[in-house]
Amino acid sequence: MKAEVITIGDEILIGQIVDTNSAFIAELLNKAGVLVHRKSTIPDEEEAIEDAVDTGLKRSDLLILTGGLGPTRDDKTKETLTTFFGDKLLLNQRVLDHIENLFRKYIGTPISEMNRRQAYLPSKARILFNPNGTAPGMWFEHGGKIVVSLPGVPFEMKHLLREEVLPAIRDQFELPFILHRTLITFGLGESAIAERIESFETSLPSEIKLAYLPSLGRVRLRLSSMGDDRQEVEQKMQKKVEELRELVSDIYYGEESEGGLEARLGNRLKERGLSLATAESFTGGQIARQIISTPGASAYFKGSVVAYATEAKIRVLEVPTELVEHYSVVSEEVAVAMAKNIRAMMQSDFAIATTGNAGPEKGDSEEEVGQVFIAISGPERSYATAYQMGKNRERITQKSVNKALEMIYQEILNF
Amino acid sequence: MKAEVITIGDEILIGQIVDTNSAFIAELLNKAGVLVHRKSTIPDEEEAIEDAVDTGLKRSDLLILTGGLGPTRDDKTKETLTTFFGDKLLLNQRVLDHIENLFRKYIGTPISEMNRRQAYLPSKARILFNPNGTAPGMWFEHGGKIVVSLPGVPFEMKHLLREEVLPAIRDQFELPFILHRTLITFGLGESAIAERIESFETSLPSEIKLAYLPSLGRVRLRLSSMGDDRQEVEQKMQKKVEELRELVSDIYYGEESEGGLEARLGNRLKERGLSLATAESFTGGQIARQIISTPGASAYFKGSVVAYATEAKIRVLEVPTELVEHYSVVSEEVAVAMAKNIRAMMQSDFAIATTGNAGPEKGDSEEEVGQVFIAISGPERSYATAYQMGKNRERITQKSVNKALEMIYQEILNF
Repeated sequence: MKAEVITIGDEILIGQIVDTNSAFIAELLNKAGVLVHRKSTIPDEEEAIEDAVDTGLKRSDLLILTGGLGPTRDDKTKETLTTFFGDKLLLNQRVLDHIENLFRKYIGTPISEMNRRQAYLPSKARILFNPNGTAPGMWFEHGGKIVVSLPGVPFEMKHLLREEVLPAIRDQFELPFILHRTLITFGLGESAIAERIESFETSLPSEIKLAYLPSLGRVRLRLSSMGDDRQEVEQKMQKKVEELRELVSDIYYGEESEGGLEARLGNRLKERGLSLATAESFTGGQIARQIISTPGASAYFKGSVVAYATEAKIRVLEVPTELVEHYSVVSEEVAVAMAKNIRAMMQSDFAIATTGNAGPEKGDSEEEVGQVFIAISGPERSYATAYQMGKNRERITQKSVNKALEMIYQEILNF
Repeated sequence: MKAEVITIGDEILIGQIVDTNSAFIAELLNKAGVLVHRKSTIPDEEEAIEDAVDTGLKRSDLLILTGGLGPTRDDKTKETLTTFFGDKLLLNQRVLDHIENLFRKYIGTPISEMNRRQAYLPSKARILFNPNGTAPGMWFEHGGKIVVSLPGVPFEMKHLLREEVLPAIRDQFELPFILHRTLITFGLGESAIAERIESFETSLPSEIKLAYLPSLGRVRLRLSSMGDDRQEVEQKMQKKVEELRELVSDIYYGEESEGGLEARLGNRLKERGLSLATAESFTGGQIARQIISTPGASAYFKGSVVAYATEAKIRVLEVPTELVEHYSVVSEEVAVAMAKNIRAMMQSDFAIATTGNAGPEKGDSEEEVGQVFIAISGPERSYATAYQMGKNRERITQKSVNKALEMIYQEILNF
């Protein structure tokens, strides 16, 4: 079963927003055994919608559209699809009651003609009831193929996809099993890895595909496969994963399915009953935020201080003024003091601290842009490492966050 | 001039990554006067690339492709385009020298056959030199139309787009002026706004388009226009913006071009010489992070404490134990104490604090999931407001961050 995701909205085409809906839809479809072979974004225009559906139906079995279902004039998806499928709009009493209810509950005014129009729906479509908003989803069937239209609000779209669309697809079709396993490596470039695993790659059976995904010092190696017999797919894949893991054992980090580095770090901390705190300068709380993004982080994450100004480092983190004056605020010594002090303040087993200059201008120190120090403090030792992270503010921050998580992960592995 | 952005990569089609490249490209093209009327994502396969380029050339003047230029076998864009345009690959000595240099400098090993192959480039394409990576961009012309292929690494793509592609497009074409102005409103739903501004909307000249972009309690109203005479476009637009602003004055927040709320907040703080600090519980440092995302934030942002555990609130933020015991850690009283104490610790003029339960389970308090308190402390008053933010962890956090920024912005406006 081949699917296509079509997002509708000028705001995506002018770059005003990043489309995250289609990634979510693609991931869930893929997990359900549906191959997404194309994604498109088109404007809120009748002609573009018609053309995309028409072309899509020629090459795909399933089209999932999002967006363009709002009550205002700029939203044209419902009317366009209704005309395209030669259907007409009829009042749906359940949807009307629901809209009236939402207004009573959250807005307090009676609904307008514009809202009432959202309850007029194509007579032949299956209506996907949207408890979280005023625009329901619609499921059209046409010549054995399916066109689903969902609202663009991510929260509403996600609910309808999970609760309505995927169960219906699973009911109606025999789907194959799609499996991806992604191995994370670090410290070696993609071409060097490719050379090293060349004979592994050329000997892969045709149903297993290998992809290289390089980014910021890491290369992810993804093996993908598909088949009707789940157990067979899994077994063959397992064998190849083991072969590959063996070939890259010195640079191997773990599998993506184990979660990001922060999830693996969290598991390790929980297993060992250890806790963590952070003191961040230019990383602005991003390390803490990534750690907290893992549900259940409150079990091991004590808290964080963002000491952006030198003053805050001195007063809140109690970094001695002499240290700052003697070594500069961007220094190994200050980083270590920050880590030690936050560890004591938060009474955590381990602590991470960062200080550095992320630019664009030199800040409170004379250190070059890109110069950063990352410190670790634990029960047995405290130390900081210097890194030069380049000139780009955003990259300096992200690379430093990655590096800090790697450092603490290694530290706890070896503890 | 109509353009199309085509991103190539299975990782986007299986939802492993969110495509941010195409939003960046669309925004820059749009600003340069190039209308992006479609975006597509296709797999790393010869046939799909050929088909997308072939179809794209029929309906667009410019295709910008990203991805598929790496050294490994799964990358097929260069070879496919070379064949498609009936060209052949030739060694480019400058690119080869550059690749060798990069390896000498950063890797220390001689380059392999695989890296050397990246210096073989289509003879008729204009080569866009990539100082940041091993894969250069390529500029093909075909029947008066242009196909540009760029690497998928965002950092490399952005540089080539800015420094090579846009200047060349501007040189070669007379481009119109495209203008968007986006007014941010809050507190009224899109259909209520649409009713209120109905006669404004129906009287808009055909070249000015209005779009409604609702999200989490705010509705953005975007007016878009295009024309050859920049001054005329700007003047007509200005008139309409003023009319619209008048109609929504009670719910008007500012324009998107003034930056997000955090940028406006930052400007206001700088103008008044005021400073800010945050103490965050379940928001995990996200408020601080959004404030710091504005360049120059160090002028007014003192720092932040993330006190995730109740223990950290007591020890680091010095919230009295009795307060926690008597009112619960999720309470107005604790929120106010957090705000007052961080303000004192950081010696800032204003402070924001959050405490709440973001779920999925009840945490250190008996408060319901979604119950949050946001506190403001300033020179004249300290107070907290209670909100019920729903049941979804991610939305509770994001809505609370937005609300906190709105509250502090209002507080400082009125100060």
